[in-house]
Amino acid sequence: MRLRLRPVDTSFYDLFTKSAQHLVLGAELLAEMLSDSSDKPDVAKRMREAEHLADETTHEIVRKVNSTFVTPFDREDIYSLGSGLDDVMDMMDEAVDLILLYEVETLPAELSEQVTVIQRCAELTADAMPRLQSMKSLEDYWIEINRLENAGDKNHRRMLANLFSGEYRTIEVLKLKDVEESLEGAIDAFEKVANIVEQIAVKES
Amino acid sequence: MRLRLRPVDTSFYDLFTKSAQHLVLGAELLAEMLSDSSDKPDVAKRMREAEHLADETTHEIVRKVNSTFVTPFDREDIYSLGSGLDDVMDMMDEAVDLILLYEVETLPAELSEQVTVIQRCAELTADAMPRLQSMKSLEDYWIEINRLENAGDKNHRRMLANLFSGEYRTIEVLKLKDVEESLEGAIDAFEKVANIVEQIAVKES
Amino acid sequence: MRLRLRPVDTSFYDLFTKSAQHLVLGAELLAEMLSDSSDKPDVAKRMREAEHLADETTHEIVRKVNSTFVTPFDREDIYSLGSGLDDVMDMMDEAVDLILLYEVETLPAELSEQVTVIQRCAELTADAMPRLQSMKSLEDYWIEINRLENAGDKNHRRMLANLFSGEYRTIEVLKLKDVEESLEGAIDAFEKVANIVEQIAVKES
Repeated sequence: MRLRLRPVDTSFYDLFTKSAQHLVLGAELLAEMLSDSSDKPDVAKRMREAEHLADETTHEIVRKVNSTFVTPFDREDIYSLGSGLDDVMDMMDEAVDLILLYEVETLPAELSEQVTVIQRCAELTADAMPRLQSMKSLEDYWIEINRLENAGDKNHRRMLANLFSGEYRTIEVLKLKDVEESLEGAIDAFEKVANIVEQIAVKES
Repeated sequence: MRLRLRPVDTSFYDLFTKSAQHLVLGAELLAEMLSDSSDKPDVAKRMREAEHLADETTHEIVRKVNSTFVTPFDREDIYSLGSGLDDVMDMMDEAVDLILLYEVETLPAELSEQVTVIQRCAELTADAMPRLQSMKSLEDYWIEINRLENAGDKNHRRMLANLFSGEYRTIEVLKLKDVEESLEGAIDAFEKVANIVEQIAVKES
Repeated sequence: MRLRLRPVDTSFYDLFTKSAQHLVLGAELLAEMLSDSSDKPDVAKRMREAEHLADETTHEIVRKVNSTFVTPFDREDIYSLGSGLDDVMDMMDEAVDLILLYEVETLPAELSEQVTVIQRCAELTADAMPRLQSMKSLEDYWIEINRLENAGDKNHRRMLANLFSGEYRTIEVLKLKDVEESLEGAIDAFEKVANIVEQIAVKES
């Protein structure tokens, strides 16, 4: 086991965990947005508030890096991880916002499948962030995120084939394609986060 | 006040200012492009020329970093700022080019509002670049750019709601959505520039 | 001529060359996909396999950087080049996948012209990668890629004007625009690779 030459600083890990917890909430709001009985403007408002809180946590991370002389792992990786988590939130917020703006009614099944993938990614990430301190079981995390991203990719392809099947009016295709692209963007953003975690783990080993 | 250990080098600041002045010209050309009485192919030709000059300034910045031993602030931040300013120009050039290519006739009001936001961002940026030397009043700059980006975001959402309201034929929606996305891209690119300026200011404080 | 203070390590150059050779194969598959007589699902399957092999080479590059104490050029540039080459493959794979998924039948002439540009970029890149060791004739490489990117840009504009001319149904415009954007993405990704090569050459001179 490697001799730790850097002071143990728990609060970066706390901030990453807080960031990931915003993502768990965001994913729940996304699922709520897709449910028939939801008050869509209200869900969108709560998502906007969650995105602002996520933004504040990201700023805390950046301020902390800038004012910490010795960081627990590479400064660049801390920035990347912080902004990677922020990117996921932005994509989920965009998806919710478009569902509201576009007054999307017909919700293809694949949209719900994507949101389920996103919720799973969020839970795994909130679970993994505290483990950055011990570096334990992180490989399981990035392997599972990669598997989920592949599942998301299959959903995406099925949805595109469905959208262009002739079943939807072209204007609906445009709207649903935009919503789906935000969801796919969120899943890809989770994969970027997993790649950064892998990079950190490899450097620290 | 921090003792300045690096030699004072004015020419990086001159180059950033020159870059930002290209953006002021580009934003004017964008406004001209939207006016009913403009000779659109001619405006697009002048924009293409302005984009080439902006490209040259970006290359000058890169060459200067590569040949300067001690830079006034982090080498990486100089690259980022130079390419960030270049990205704004590319987005404005793309917007002008699409308006020409798509023979856009109906110009929704929100497009003009976005161009006004872009013009304001360009003026503020040309004003801020010389202040990188003294680091004075830079916070006002990035705070105002952030406010303008929020305004741009509201315009963007209003435009999308309008485009999908049923007022436009679907093929027109496609065209106008592309143009609007270039304009939104330019505003987001200004926000990236403001973030880099904030990063530089924080590190130098 | 600069005294080489770093040990000569051929295997990074071998890995970059291998990466670029995947791109040559990918570009051939892309050309095959556009041919009338091709078995499209089979070509797409072979492209998916080529993309997996390309992915493995990218991972080899990353593992090698992480486990090499003294690298032949900047560590960051090795990462950038490796992932830049990977991005080209992803774009080509996406184009092939969309042609399959969207059951694209009418293939505008400009699509073939873009694929010819992509094939040329791939050949030049596979040719240039071994030359990273000697740094010879690399300027010819990035200059020619820039010229090809400009040609690709003209094709792109012609195709957009054509797509929106009224000749195609709007749903077809949507599909062909997506395919074209993947092709343009591949060409832009080649330009990013050429920029990274230029950056490496400039730093090493």
